[in-house]
Amino acid sequence: MLSVDQFRESFLAYLEKTSIQREPRNLYQPIDYILQLGGKRLRPVLTLLTTELFGASHEKALDAALAVEIFHNFSLVHDDIMDDAPLRRGKQTVHEKWDINTGILSGDAMLILAYQLFENYETETFKQLAQIFSKTALEVCEGQQYDVDFEVRSDVTEVEYLKMIEYKTAVLVGAAMKMGAIVAKASKDQAQLIYDYGRLLGIAFQLQDDYLDAFGDPLTFGKQVGGDIIENKKTYLYIKAIEKANNKDLAKLNEYFSENCSVDNDTKVIEVKQIFVNSGAAKLTQNAIEKFTNNAFKVLELIDVDEDSKKVLADFGESLMFRTV
Amino acid sequence: MLSVDQFRESFLAYLEKTSIQREPRNLYQPIDYILQLGGKRLRPVLTLLTTELFGASHEKALDAALAVEIFHNFSLVHDDIMDDAPLRRGKQTVHEKWDINTGILSGDAMLILAYQLFENYETETFKQLAQIFSKTALEVCEGQQYDVDFEVRSDVTEVEYLKMIEYKTAVLVGAAMKMGAIVAKASKDQAQLIYDYGRLLGIAFQLQDDYLDAFGDPLTFGKQVGGDIIENKKTYLYIKAIEKANNKDLAKLNEYFSENCSVDNDTKVIEVKQIFVNSGAAKLTQNAIEKFTNNAFKVLELIDVDEDSKKVLADFGESLMFRTV
Repeated sequence: MLSVDQFRESFLAYLEKTSIQREPRNLYQPIDYILQLGGKRLRPVLTLLTTELFGASHEKALDAALAVEIFHNFSLVHDDIMDDAPLRRGKQTVHEKWDINTGILSGDAMLILAYQLFENYETETFKQLAQIFSKTALEVCEGQQYDVDFEVRSDVTEVEYLKMIEYKTAVLVGAAMKMGAIVAKASKDQAQLIYDYGRLLGIAFQLQDDYLDAFGDPLTFGKQVGGDIIENKKTYLYIKAIEKANNKDLAKLNEYFSENCSVDNDTKVIEVKQIFVNSGAAKLTQNAIEKFTNNAFKVLELIDVDEDSKKVLADFGESLMFRTV
Repeated sequence: MLSVDQFRESFLAYLEKTSIQREPRNLYQPIDYILQLGGKRLRPVLTLLTTELFGASHEKALDAALAVEIFHNFSLVHDDIMDDAPLRRGKQTVHEKWDINTGILSGDAMLILAYQLFENYETETFKQLAQIFSKTALEVCEGQQYDVDFEVRSDVTEVEYLKMIEYKTAVLVGAAMKMGAIVAKASKDQAQLIYDYGRLLGIAFQLQDDYLDAFGDPLTFGKQVGGDIIENKKTYLYIKAIEKANNKDLAKLNEYFSENCSVDNDTKVIEVKQIFVNSGAAKLTQNAIEKFTNNAFKVLELIDVDEDSKKVLADFGESLMFRTV
């Protein structure tokens, strides 16, 4: 089996080759721009890796992998408009470099282009790929809507929050892998297991994102440490702190997260992190990450492929979970 | 064969039955809202009618018809954001009633929901429906981009303009009919002919929209007569006038269509209409409408179905073309 880096190389070569140089330029240029911006290419690599895991050549999965990556970037383009984000991977976002209308329309075209890539597969595979893709894409929209809804709610439960990150982030990781299984014509059961592995790992991954945003090493963490706290984001850490903090800390947390909090950001980050630790929320978050990761690995055990291949997948999962960035 | 009104009734009953009452409400409510706003339901009716034309029950085509209608409304929701339009069918647009982010995200979900409706068909039909749908949806995006691009160009040719309206409007009419043919398992040739009939009629329909916008009867025309002239829209009438007007009229037209034109709208509409008539542009537009309509009917002749069914389709085509509203 190839290494993760080799799968990434293979995907990048394919992406380069299929660069979209069509008319009208004002529609396709922004698509090309966002697809070339870089990133870890995590999802398409998982698609390719899964196809090989189930005994087919990863080259058969390149179109499915590209569909996943185009969809992921479509969601970034539209989300960045909604979040009014000026930067993505350190470069201008599409709506910032062009304008909002371009971001909307180019994003729409990307969603359609992703579906079109499935046309390169025979009919039965086409239907299965389109089906898991539609289900997942709709869940990603629902996850995004829950995320928006939660911003103005103060009673978000742990269950609701986990569902939100599952939909917004984790199902696409599961689907990327399931699509690899579909291309390799794995059995329905096996395809479902690999989906669950990806989904559980995706939830753990997002929870770890929450954790690192507060407790990551400022020297290696890509973004500003404490960014979620500054933006009053109701992460897993926050929800657990609200649930477990003593009355004094709870009052303090509510004050820090109120609209008219006048404390400077540095103090706020330090104090809120202290509450996350004191309340046990930090530890509970680590426990949750561990639980979802372990459950993912338990599912992986059930998958019927040789141990060597499984190890590549497990190592990749571990490298994601024990990252500090 | 049922009448056009009966097909519409059947479609509306199905739309009512499949009303989307899901969570999160903030995502699905706007979808329900726009789908219930009304309209002529022209495209889904054409899908149902075509299925019966090729000998199958229109009920088999209800999901395909709904997909077409959902896609059409998706494009309205996103276009209305781009055009900053406050009203649609006399009611608030989605982004006006909610906000732009809701319009973007609910629109995205509609596009996916349209694809999901094809899952109700067996595999081969599913693939064919999804394929013509993706091709068409991408062309609609391209048409919209050309329309945006043309706003800031002063050298748009007749050929370019016709391609723009073909993509933005006509291909969806053709696709709506082709999807009816696919559901009825008509031959590839027959499906292509009915597609061309719809496409040609769609172009004629849009040219007539251009014509009526200037020369329609203010008492029966739904919108403000002269709206395109007031907004400096480069319609077929305008392109032909630029091509044919004498030097004096050409100078006048350029002045009226310049950014800093200070003439009041009523005078501008009267004068520009006079130039459209004097230059022969009005007559040339009528000729073009006639040409595309005749070509559509010639294609219809080639379609291998009984004359009675063909007559329903021809009558429907004529009723669209000889409308004054």
